[in-house]
Amino acid sequence: VHEFEIIKAIRLCSRDPHDAVVIGPGDDMALVDPAGKQLLLAVDQVVEGIHFKVSAATMEQIGTKAVNRSLSDIAAMAARPLASLATACLPKSLGQARAEQLFASMRRAANLYNCPLVGGDITIWDGPLTLTVTVTGTPGPGGVKRRDAARPGDRVFVTGRLGGSYSSGRHLSFLPRIPEALALAETLGDELHAMIDLSDGLGRDASHIANASGVTIRLEAERIPRNEATSVEQAIGDGEDYELCLTVAPTAKVPTAIGDVLLTEVGAVGPSDAAGRVVLTTQSGQSMAVEQLGWEHHA
Amino acid sequence: VHEFEIIKAIRLCSRDPHDAVVIGPGDDMALVDPAGKQLLLAVDQVVEGIHFKVSAATMEQIGTKAVNRSLSDIAAMAARPLASLATACLPKSLGQARAEQLFASMRRAANLYNCPLVGGDITIWDGPLTLTVTVTGTPGPGGVKRRDAARPGDRVFVTGRLGGSYSSGRHLSFLPRIPEALALAETLGDELHAMIDLSDGLGRDASHIANASGVTIRLEAERIPRNEATSVEQAIGDGEDYELCLTVAPTAKVPTAIGDVLLTEVGAVGPSDAAGRVVLTTQSGQSMAVEQLGWEHHA
Repeated sequence: VHEFEIIKAIRLCSRDPHDAVVIGPGDDMALVDPAGKQLLLAVDQVVEGIHFKVSAATMEQIGTKAVNRSLSDIAAMAARPLASLATACLPKSLGQARAEQLFASMRRAANLYNCPLVGGDITIWDGPLTLTVTVTGTPGPGGVKRRDAARPGDRVFVTGRLGGSYSSGRHLSFLPRIPEALALAETLGDELHAMIDLSDGLGRDASHIANASGVTIRLEAERIPRNEATSVEQAIGDGEDYELCLTVAPTAKVPTAIGDVLLTEVGAVGPSDAAGRVVLTTQSGQSMAVEQLGWEHHA
Repeated sequence: VHEFEIIKAIRLCSRDPHDAVVIGPGDDMALVDPAGKQLLLAVDQVVEGIHFKVSAATMEQIGTKAVNRSLSDIAAMAARPLASLATACLPKSLGQARAEQLFASMRRAANLYNCPLVGGDITIWDGPLTLTVTVTGTPGPGGVKRRDAARPGDRVFVTGRLGGSYSSGRHLSFLPRIPEALALAETLGDELHAMIDLSDGLGRDASHIANASGVTIRLEAERIPRNEATSVEQAIGDGEDYELCLTVAPTAKVPTAIGDVLLTEVGAVGPSDAAGRVVLTTQSGQSMAVEQLGWEHHA
């Protein structure tokens, strides 16, 4: 019976399973193409003890972070949100009132960015609080922006200010840069090449672009926009900024801000020898590799 | 800054967030409509200690179950698989080799039903093994089959045999009824009214149809196809069968099997007074309410 059913399933599903997959794993979102209409897909999880401490965050903050963390991947692709799904493993001790606060905040965050929660699954258990949020989206006005499109000579920019997100609590209150990404894609068009959101820290995330694009990236220490009381090393190595890092054609006219969000040039894309390297240079002429400097999630 | 950004986000995302949502939470899958191309979405999780015991299941079985459990929702909508995403919280003690077995089995199960894994997120932690699988799909040849379309006079059918899934280990080896659902939708067309997959047990899952459709459902005890060594009560109350329950217009010509999978008439849809009731009748004329008989997931 088992084998017969498998054969039958294969026959009935005879299309190549990957025909619909335009971008598979490895970018901020996958891109699938159900007969002409493209759809972006991503999932992220937020886990007690790793992405938050229950003692240091409200239910509203945790629920909002879980949604906004996934929405940040939509920003990274310069895409438009479509709909979302969530799962929760809730500790028995959490209780009904806090569970409702959690879900209300998730619905609110999802609706704010036009990505309504349309389904989910809840388990009550003895373990820690964990949430996953799946987001779907459609390509924005400038098409999807991938990690693999940086070219030698590109200028490298970041939105906002970096560093200290975890220690300052900003990792609980950031907003996904969806409006900014759509505005950038519309303004820069094809001159906006590669884009990623900064979740692991600028050093590591820039190396994701450098690896995917087969290039090197040089960052200039004194140009990196830092949050208050944050060293250059923290600005490059801390994670959970959820700002955007983008590479832009050298000829592009790039604004200094999108609305009230700073847009700062922080470096340039170099040649394809030693691809994947990210080098930080200082005014005094020192340089160091920073692609390993990124942050490991911790609570 | 916070408020300004929120206002800006709302303005930039000015379409009503629910414009694209055709079916929201409450059915087996949500249905969203990105400008004309309809897309089905669902997520389920599989949690150690609730849906499996590590001591009683291989990594292959756990990974396969996680994927097939979500694919069963695609069957329940008579939809075609498109692409999937997975998350995992892996105990530190699991190790690389077993993690790879787990992911390989998830990829294999997803590809078998033409629903390739296109993204995911992995966390290593001190907690139990948990997996989530998000699936997307497109409407099948007969359109989507919802829970709310049962009508008084419909005949009620189930695929396969019911009961004892957990104790027999079948909950680790079932196959989602996607080919059967597509064949049913194609054969029966508009005469196939409501459909659901049996995860909570026939009593509870039939009550989901009865509630959503505003009808009652009568099940006949002696007709319910049971697995070996399974009582009627277990066949109705046990969960995790992942068979289909469907209601069909009284005039429809219904086959007795789909391939090698039995299709058995087990009852009928009654009037809309006392909507939501599911009543089991026996040959001796006794009757009992079984909508609460369903199974609570346990390990």
